Amino acid sequence: MNQNAKPYVIGLDLGGTNSVFGIVDQDANIVAETSVKTRGHNDNAQQYVDDCVVELRKIIDEVGGIEKIRAMGIGAPNGNYYTGCIEFAPNLAWAHETVPLAKMFSDALGIPVAMTNDANAAAIGEMTYGAAKGMKNFIMITLGTGVGSGIVVNGQMVYGCDGQAGELGHVIVDPQGRECGCGRRGCLETYCSATGVARTAREMLTTTDRPSLLREIPLEQIESKDVSMAAAKGDEMAKEIFEFTGRILGEACANFAAFCSPEAFVFFGGLTKAGDLIMEPIKQAYDRNVLKIYQGKAQMLISRLDDANAAVLGASAIGWEVAMETANINRQ
Amino acid sequence: MNQNAKPYVIGLDLGGTNSVFGIVDQDANIVAETSVKTRGHNDNAQQYVDDCVVELRKIIDEVGGIEKIRAMGIGAPNGNYYTGCIEFAPNLAWAHETVPLAKMFSDALGIPVAMTNDANAAAIGEMTYGAAKGMKNFIMITLGTGVGSGIVVNGQMVYGCDGQAGELGHVIVDPQGRECGCGRRGCLETYCSATGVARTAREMLTTTDRPSLLREIPLEQIESKDVSMAAAKGDEMAKEIFEFTGRILGEACANFAAFCSPEAFVFFGGLTKAGDLIMEPIKQAYDRNVLKIYQGKAQMLISRLDDANAAVLGASAIGWEVAMETANINRQ
Repeated sequence: MNQNAKPYVIGLDLGGTNSVFGIVDQDANIVAETSVKTRGHNDNAQQYVDDCVVELRKIIDEVGGIEKIRAMGIGAPNGNYYTGCIEFAPNLAWAHETVPLAKMFSDALGIPVAMTNDANAAAIGEMTYGAAKGMKNFIMITLGTGVGSGIVVNGQMVYGCDGQAGELGHVIVDPQGRECGCGRRGCLETYCSATGVARTAREMLTTTDRPSLLREIPLEQIESKDVSMAAAKGDEMAKEIFEFTGRILGEACANFAAFCSPEAFVFFGGLTKAGDLIMEPIKQAYDRNVLKIYQGKAQMLISRLDDANAAVLGASAIGWEVAMETANINRQ
Repeated sequence: MNQNAKPYVIGLDLGGTNSVFGIVDQDANIVAETSVKTRGHNDNAQQYVDDCVVELRKIIDEVGGIEKIRAMGIGAPNGNYYTGCIEFAPNLAWAHETVPLAKMFSDALGIPVAMTNDANAAAIGEMTYGAAKGMKNFIMITLGTGVGSGIVVNGQMVYGCDGQAGELGHVIVDPQGRECGCGRRGCLETYCSATGVARTAREMLTTTDRPSLLREIPLEQIESKDVSMAAAKGDEMAKEIFEFTGRILGEACANFAAFCSPEAFVFFGGLTKAGDLIMEPIKQAYDRNVLKIYQGKAQMLISRLDDANAAVLGASAIGWEVAMETANINRQ
């Protein structure tokens, strides 16, 4: 191997909708990027890996071939840092049971691969490069297809006894509430994910006859970004949908503060593009509901990194870790 | 100072009802003990300290005088490890505002004093001497006058950005629920503390005409231990009260698991004396409600230390910490 070749790692941000691959250098530059739809692949994990590797090989060739790549880091829903497996990811049809994804990519590419929760990867990215730089205690909340979270305490990622800690999207906020992909009811993510926002829109449109720009869109095609665009145009119902979403999220965060009294909540993902439309209701509900001793202590921040980059860079940080470990083992 | 004198620290377990003082040696033996009612003292913090010091002097004299005492550690509701203050403790009439209790005891006794949350002190005691010995990730839940908690992640106490983390008794489990001393509604501790159990008993007795041994006790005098005794005699209503309490606690713990995926929940305090009457409903509700990835991972344990000792020893551990720091500073 040419020791002078500039080394890279691959970072994979595996989201419910898209799987974004970035080839990253040691200065956190993403030098090549590609993406693959996460769904499909005949609901088969091996097919997913094979389809990804076909796309990946193209950008690997762009940077000079696989011998330039030291390792890969994956941020994935229910990705387990300790085992390298995705365990029962409710939003992934090909991962309803345990899938040893790190090993599968490692076998396909011939490089070491490590994995963590997608939201943990984003939190590591945010702590290293973003809004949480220098913070020792914060909670990252990712508002994508689902709601994920990465919790940092005393400057360390919280992995728990099994590598699966930090699933705040599956805190039950209403035991009689909406059905969740996890098989239970009323999880935070059934309300506060992009999917949840679209669900709220459909509920409001079908249970009232209030006027709204959203009525111009076929009901089943409504997405959170349509609600965002309608709200930006002053649509009252759309604004109310964000108020409802933000209120539930702010109330949940008020409860989360009782755990680890964070110096910040960092929000991340598509829904944060709605800006104050969602952030103001979050802040108001938080201030109204948080225990007195925590009042005024946590900042409510939007990620400073663009969505894909934070997660890809976070995943790449895990990749560098495993690359260092492997280099050390080989040297011994 | 006689360098050969056996040194001690004072540990104070400041509970909603009793303040228990222990003089503790380096081998964790409690060599002298006394207690003072926490309430009263004209609702005045200085009066509380003065009244405590009168009692404390007696046991200090028993062990050979204040020169034998290196420091004091306090475990107190809303006790702040970083500031040494009790901040807005809803259950303490003399601490509705910030009280610099560590400094007040230090001024009165002339020794260094450090403080933490009462439940954190219990968790440290449990981790050092009890059921959580050797564990790196667990949640201590104290079921006393209120519900407290101490959270350990990666083997470290979770203090948060302000020293106030770990107030799981004030997680809201029902936004329309019971009024709490903290000024909000539906906090876990309004249901699952000793006070909450008595409140449930009074509610059941007044809203139904079902027979119960509890009807032999004047309504306002019912305490959780009466419910416990009635349940032990097979009283159906009393058993139902524990089932209700355990179910709420088990459901809450299922949500808590999503934070830090602990290897155990350790329950502590008066209510645990009900044994299986409360532990079985906790376990059942937990198993029924916890996210699939966490199923079967956390043990549900009762503290192995007697109530006062764990908290006093935990507080004393904080005392030894500050004694070491002071010794190091004096040596420089």
